[in-house]
Amino acid sequence: MKFLNEVAEEFPSATSLAAGRPTDRFFNRFHPGMLLDKYAHESHMVGGCDLDDVRARVLQYGGTAGMINELVAWQLRTDEGISVPPNRVLITAGCQEALALCLPALCSDPADVVLVLNPTYIGATGAARASGVSVFGISSSFSCLVEAIEQSVCKLREEGKCARALYLIPSFDNPTGQVMDEAQRRAILASCVRHRIVVLEDNPYGLFRYDGPAVQPLAALDEAGCVIYLSTFSKTIAPAVRVGAATLPETLFGDRAASTALWNDLVERKSYLTVNTSQITQALVAGLLMDQNGTLKQWIKPALEWYRSNRNAMLSQLQATFPAISNQLRWNHPSGGFFLAVDLPFRFDAQAVVECANQYRVIVLPMSFFALDDSQDCRIRLSFSAVDPEQIRRGINSLADYVAYRIGRHSSVIEQVHAV
Amino acid sequence: MKFLNEVAEEFPSATSLAAGRPTDRFFNRFHPGMLLDKYAHESHMVGGCDLDDVRARVLQYGGTAGMINELVAWQLRTDEGISVPPNRVLITAGCQEALALCLPALCSDPADVVLVLNPTYIGATGAARASGVSVFGISSSFSCLVEAIEQSVCKLREEGKCARALYLIPSFDNPTGQVMDEAQRRAILASCVRHRIVVLEDNPYGLFRYDGPAVQPLAALDEAGCVIYLSTFSKTIAPAVRVGAATLPETLFGDRAASTALWNDLVERKSYLTVNTSQITQALVAGLLMDQNGTLKQWIKPALEWYRSNRNAMLSQLQATFPAISNQLRWNHPSGGFFLAVDLPFRFDAQAVVECANQYRVIVLPMSFFALDDSQDCRIRLSFSAVDPEQIRRGINSLADYVAYRIGRHSSVIEQVHAV
Repeated sequence: MKFLNEVAEEFPSATSLAAGRPTDRFFNRFHPGMLLDKYAHESHMVGGCDLDDVRARVLQYGGTAGMINELVAWQLRTDEGISVPPNRVLITAGCQEALALCLPALCSDPADVVLVLNPTYIGATGAARASGVSVFGISSSFSCLVEAIEQSVCKLREEGKCARALYLIPSFDNPTGQVMDEAQRRAILASCVRHRIVVLEDNPYGLFRYDGPAVQPLAALDEAGCVIYLSTFSKTIAPAVRVGAATLPETLFGDRAASTALWNDLVERKSYLTVNTSQITQALVAGLLMDQNGTLKQWIKPALEWYRSNRNAMLSQLQATFPAISNQLRWNHPSGGFFLAVDLPFRFDAQAVVECANQYRVIVLPMSFFALDDSQDCRIRLSFSAVDPEQIRRGINSLADYVAYRIGRHSSVIEQVHAV
Repeated sequence: MKFLNEVAEEFPSATSLAAGRPTDRFFNRFHPGMLLDKYAHESHMVGGCDLDDVRARVLQYGGTAGMINELVAWQLRTDEGISVPPNRVLITAGCQEALALCLPALCSDPADVVLVLNPTYIGATGAARASGVSVFGISSSFSCLVEAIEQSVCKLREEGKCARALYLIPSFDNPTGQVMDEAQRRAILASCVRHRIVVLEDNPYGLFRYDGPAVQPLAALDEAGCVIYLSTFSKTIAPAVRVGAATLPETLFGDRAASTALWNDLVERKSYLTVNTSQITQALVAGLLMDQNGTLKQWIKPALEWYRSNRNAMLSQLQATFPAISNQLRWNHPSGGFFLAVDLPFRFDAQAVVECANQYRVIVLPMSFFALDDSQDCRIRLSFSAVDPEQIRRGINSLADYVAYRIGRHSSVIEQVHAV
């Protein structure tokens, strides 16, 4: 990630289709002072607390597990269909901290392994590595995931290892953009229950669905108690709140004491990582959830519409720019989220990022950055969340120029590109 | 800590001399909305940035190492006499995250050990344990620390281990309240340089000095590059900002590349723990630092005066309450900070906390909670930061009743207590 930030800084005039951040176009609706007042007044009205006491309490140290657990449980129930008591919702400093807590807690033995898709979000593999947890990459596609899990479990067992957890972004995956249908979700759950594998379901993009059928999170379908749901307000509200949550099932594979023991372990680990999540930013999230009656669906609507039209613009531009070489180039049509994946007929590595940014003024991300092996060397990730349609048009045109240069069909493609 | 929180909740009418939090008596001067405006306007005026751009940028993801590094470097220079370039100041989610980053980075080999005082702050030993770092307890007193370091280094070497770091709160230690004089500091530095031990200097209470000579932090005295300075705004501003910093020396034992390598390692680890520290709370800290011209000394003055008079009240009350048994009871006279230590003529354990809270309505903390062995079993920590003089009077009187009950000199002491 450091490399990418530096490239973006080094070529500030290049169009970046690399950043996976939310648009800040609608951040001007977010008023910290008003939201803190909202939280204080509601706590005063509902809880009967003295207004000055609430304000002072917010600025203090707070409970390790969080201050706004009930409100987050309310939002999870309303927006995601996940029903859990507040004492199973652990508030974290963003989803990243939830990963840094859950991975070593679930994989505490050196033989324990977390299964991940290949490619997958580097924050997950990075958190695993940083805490000494072994990572095992399985299928890159949701369609053959159950088979891949079964095979991996056997293979690991032969090596004296044990698959303890499966990290997954089932809705509008980062980096691939793919979505898992309900039948696949139920099959994954059955497989994980059979092998006692805890699913770490990461769902930062779930509410940003542009078309296609709505699918419930795994945590909402989970009846056996095998899913820990990782959520974040970075995409729905703002990254700078650094508020997320790890939501545990009431029982872990039917065992209530096991879930409570895991909860206690996570809370203790949290106290040694960050003491507690900032109560100021928790109060900002709380103020907004109170203001929005426990749902963020209305709040995110302008951003969702923006992302949808950006996704459409990117797909149209890809279609318009690459017809002549489309037999050599493939991309998916994500029905939500921030990303799509493009298969190229050549390797695209760190050097290519620099070359492309330098000479063609577009920055894109090699899929190999997210990969555990060389299977992703000829793919890139394109992001359409933090750009506007004109940047998308320009970026895809520049990418087309670069692709033409790389595949040596310079002249004919350039002509077409400039006709678009 | 969980036990203690639960005791405090279970006996809400008991006076707590246990909480090590800052007073919230002066939090009403802290206005988040105004401070965010201050930060945005100053960035606009000084940096020439568009006001809306600044506001939007604050709400986004930010640099892993932080956004307000220059301002924090300015405050460290002004208030602590520590001169470092901003690119050695890593902004963290409170000092606890700095510990969680530094300990495994410095002690990456299974043979590596962090030296700590015994007793010491449990957040340090907890962070070490949580990241698999071995802890070795040395002296409980600053006066014989150099000898203890030398002996420990030899002892560890014989066991095939290596002392890599020394965790220390040299000014107004938590939990003992003691302070290290300049000669001791210079001797510690010399010893650590000799053995290539990195000092993790934790200094949350340094600005809260009530009397006695001013002593510079180890980091300000360090010419060899052996001190990482851990700072926090939890006590000077408010715990809920969750902003701290790990400040690296420009060279590590004279080696600039080694310091840069450690910096890069810490930044990468940080990206996998919390991505980046909330830019909202960073902006709050920045707004206050701008408003206060880079020093917090004026800002903390009301709290400092409050703590000083609380310390005085606690010492007076101890003196007034315990004269008859003072040959069996000893306490120190801290010249700053939040805590003092009392030696009791009997063991004081978790059961005693409950008994004392339940029957005598005062909550105090066993020193054994901070200890690595049984050497602290007959000591307690008293905190005077988050109480008022009347609570101190009541709390110490109740403690005297409990002490009298425990040492079986019930009647005579009770008489005296009630005469105070």
